[in-house]
Amino acid sequence: MSDIDQVRNDLVIANRVLALENVVDAYGHVSVRHPARPDRFLLSRSRSPFLVDASDILEFTLEGKVVGDDNRAPYLERFIHAAIYEARPEVGAVVHAHAEDILPFSISKTTRLQAVIGSGSNLGHDVQVWDIREKFGDGTNLLVTNMDHGRDLARRLAENTVCLMRGHGFAAAESSLQEVVRMAVYLPRNARVQMAAMRMGDINPLLFNEIEIKRSAHRPASPEAWRAWEYWAHRAGCAELLGKPPR
Amino acid sequence: MSDIDQVRNDLVIANRVLALENVVDAYGHVSVRHPARPDRFLLSRSRSPFLVDASDILEFTLEGKVVGDDNRAPYLERFIHAAIYEARPEVGAVVHAHAEDILPFSISKTTRLQAVIGSGSNLGHDVQVWDIREKFGDGTNLLVTNMDHGRDLARRLAENTVCLMRGHGFAAAESSLQEVVRMAVYLPRNARVQMAAMRMGDINPLLFNEIEIKRSAHRPASPEAWRAWEYWAHRAGCAELLGKPPR
Amino acid sequence: MSDIDQVRNDLVIANRVLALENVVDAYGHVSVRHPARPDRFLLSRSRSPFLVDASDILEFTLEGKVVGDDNRAPYLERFIHAAIYEARPEVGAVVHAHAEDILPFSISKTTRLQAVIGSGSNLGHDVQVWDIREKFGDGTNLLVTNMDHGRDLARRLAENTVCLMRGHGFAAAESSLQEVVRMAVYLPRNARVQMAAMRMGDINPLLFNEIEIKRSAHRPASPEAWRAWEYWAHRAGCAELLGKPPR
Amino acid sequence: MSDIDQVRNDLVIANRVLALENVVDAYGHVSVRHPARPDRFLLSRSRSPFLVDASDILEFTLEGKVVGDDNRAPYLERFIHAAIYEARPEVGAVVHAHAEDILPFSISKTTRLQAVIGSGSNLGHDVQVWDIREKFGDGTNLLVTNMDHGRDLARRLAENTVCLMRGHGFAAAESSLQEVVRMAVYLPRNARVQMAAMRMGDINPLLFNEIEIKRSAHRPASPEAWRAWEYWAHRAGCAELLGKPPR
Repeated sequence: MSDIDQVRNDLVIANRVLALENVVDAYGHVSVRHPARPDRFLLSRSRSPFLVDASDILEFTLEGKVVGDDNRAPYLERFIHAAIYEARPEVGAVVHAHAEDILPFSISKTTRLQAVIGSGSNLGHDVQVWDIREKFGDGTNLLVTNMDHGRDLARRLAENTVCLMRGHGFAAAESSLQEVVRMAVYLPRNARVQMAAMRMGDINPLLFNEIEIKRSAHRPASPEAWRAWEYWAHRAGCAELLGKPPR
Repeated sequence: MSDIDQVRNDLVIANRVLALENVVDAYGHVSVRHPARPDRFLLSRSRSPFLVDASDILEFTLEGKVVGDDNRAPYLERFIHAAIYEARPEVGAVVHAHAEDILPFSISKTTRLQAVIGSGSNLGHDVQVWDIREKFGDGTNLLVTNMDHGRDLARRLAENTVCLMRGHGFAAAESSLQEVVRMAVYLPRNARVQMAAMRMGDINPLLFNEIEIKRSAHRPASPEAWRAWEYWAHRAGCAELLGKPPR
Repeated sequence: MSDIDQVRNDLVIANRVLALENVVDAYGHVSVRHPARPDRFLLSRSRSPFLVDASDILEFTLEGKVVGDDNRAPYLERFIHAAIYEARPEVGAVVHAHAEDILPFSISKTTRLQAVIGSGSNLGHDVQVWDIREKFGDGTNLLVTNMDHGRDLARRLAENTVCLMRGHGFAAAESSLQEVVRMAVYLPRNARVQMAAMRMGDINPLLFNEIEIKRSAHRPASPEAWRAWEYWAHRAGCAELLGKPPR
Repeated sequence: MSDIDQVRNDLVIANRVLALENVVDAYGHVSVRHPARPDRFLLSRSRSPFLVDASDILEFTLEGKVVGDDNRAPYLERFIHAAIYEARPEVGAVVHAHAEDILPFSISKTTRLQAVIGSGSNLGHDVQVWDIREKFGDGTNLLVTNMDHGRDLARRLAENTVCLMRGHGFAAAESSLQEVVRMAVYLPRNARVQMAAMRMGDINPLLFNEIEIKRSAHRPASPEAWRAWEYWAHRAGCAELLGKPPR
């Protein structure tokens, strides 16, 4: 199988896993940078991730334009992906979703989401909330529907791995599909644990160095990363799309 | 397929989707205004939405009387639907259900449900609680079992899209089946997010203009609306009943 | 099918429905009074309700002794059922379970479970907590393993429909299997709604008269009662065991 | 079937049950001491418990080294198991997992997890939190990746049955696989009940004697223990691996 075909298969797996894990429902999407053309990315046409297969995947420029003459409707918010790939050359994959349990932190005036469990260490040190009205006023429908919106979000994301979007959801950026799926799955869990622990009183979040070490220790080709990817693909019913395990 | 047949199929889909999403269980129901006769509406006989098929659907007058001589038992609370269609000519579909996570707001003396997330913008600006005892005293079983009850509820609903019912559930009214299902699915999510965020302190709800714009921006025939409808029908196991996608 | 055979089938349905609805897991049980011999009741041998079929059902005296020479192990806590049937001639069915969401009320020193939603009206006006240590001290394993324990619990239950058991679970008694299953399914929901609403401040519980009217209005042979029973049996995969619907 | 083959089958069942009950996901693991060689234990290679079968099971020394020349990747944290077996000769089975609902207690500065429900009595009297930084500083990725880490954790576990790990998970040790699975399933439930009850005010936890009596009353070969094991194996889809029921 050619490299690009396996990337497409991995993107299908990513869609199905995010659906399985309730990170996305009818809405939300995941993309991957084109393996041969860093100025392009791959993203499904406007379809629920649960239903996406390889034939739904379109190719986009970093301005969010469909490459070629495919006229199937794209996602309205493809500019989230475009602007992050444009701003962050090291980013290889992006998720935007509305996972329910991060939403309280996106509208709280008092409390910031922070990494409190090992599997949440990928949140890093600084999870910001982007509020579309800060720059664009109250005359929007909250959606990121053009490059101006997307670039403003990418600026708030800055060098972090995840940024919440007020009353809306989150955007996450990692170097690979496996990593961004893993982050998207554990982000709501970290949020739930933080909320539950704070209701009991003061908490011990992860330490600065622990976050640094845990993130740098994660290798996408490790048996530990594969273990999760293989597990999710089986649970999501698409194990036949898996590539070869790392050695 | 004739128009009325597709409407019946859409109503079956709506029943199954509300069951899938735990908006209804053995109880709760969804109706659609008759496409050719605005003084009629379609609603299942007394049956769990999970089990409803096209042969269960009855036709009702706006007084809640079965049209024809079908003597299968109707829902006791069909008057919720009748009274809302009577009062609101622009309403095309109605849901009544007891979705668990909106119930706390229906009995709270202190806290009002409000739109806090984009997918909850259809709640609008003013979610009232109808309490049957205000007009009918404590001598009821809480149920809306006649037109007097129904009309009192419709008055409290007024021009809004949703009204909570104290210790009981909610009634929602939208222009189409797709829209009222979408509202009914995201209503409990909005409620959960609001409760979780308020436990952490002050919150940022949606702004007035955001709600207005988001609601006016929603087009039932858009790819975004279809994406959800197609997704839910597949998950609910009745994709074969889907009509044609919009272009 | 003979009457007793249908009662056995109904008891299998009840077991499977309680498993489906997570009222029971490996533990918990449901019984029915013998239709022809009010001094006997039917209850499975010691088996998870999820796995119970008609061949597992044993007959017991009101002292909790197996009738006949079947030597398969009975449930340790069969005395809950025996003592309630003994004390309450009008009771036709009993559930004992450890449904998670009622347990916080069983150990709270400050807050009583009460009926706050229509489907919880069967809780009645007074939900007591039975604490085994009040009479038997701290030298028990919390279980109701003899008639002394069972009779003490039945005294605390008194004329109510449900009694919590401290750190353990609940016992519920109704006139029929359908009613006791319905109560057991909605009891945890009522508990969750009460907890969530109280976290927001003061609440409006059901009124005294509403509880009275709602309970007296419920007829086991109504289309509404059948709607739930039929729904649950289908969801639990045992619709083929259903008797005939009421007319 | 030979004894060791049934032990391997039981270990497969334990893996699948912990996956079914969401105690583990892609991560977390369960082991059993070798039935004939107390200086060895059995544990899967690095694989999600959901996917483990008998061919994945490796044999380890009490220093966490694979016996033989199998070069498939082992779990990084096998030293948790090794160190507990080394320190506690009476321990027959160990679980390490990240069950979400115990995590709040692992990072709370104010509140200790304690046994509050009968099925949580196996937690015992003293649930400690092990914080890797106490001995090893903030220069770790939280994981137990060598015998020094493992022995420090085992010291904190001491003679108890479970020890929380700050921001990470828990380690549980019991005399048999059935017991450690049961503990791991009910541990998160006990945690949820405690959190929910404490939000309402003061609580009644289990009494000292009740914990003692309940734990000593539990017999692994009892019908009650088998009832759960049989139930879980059926639900997890691996009932064909069950051994013979006790008599």
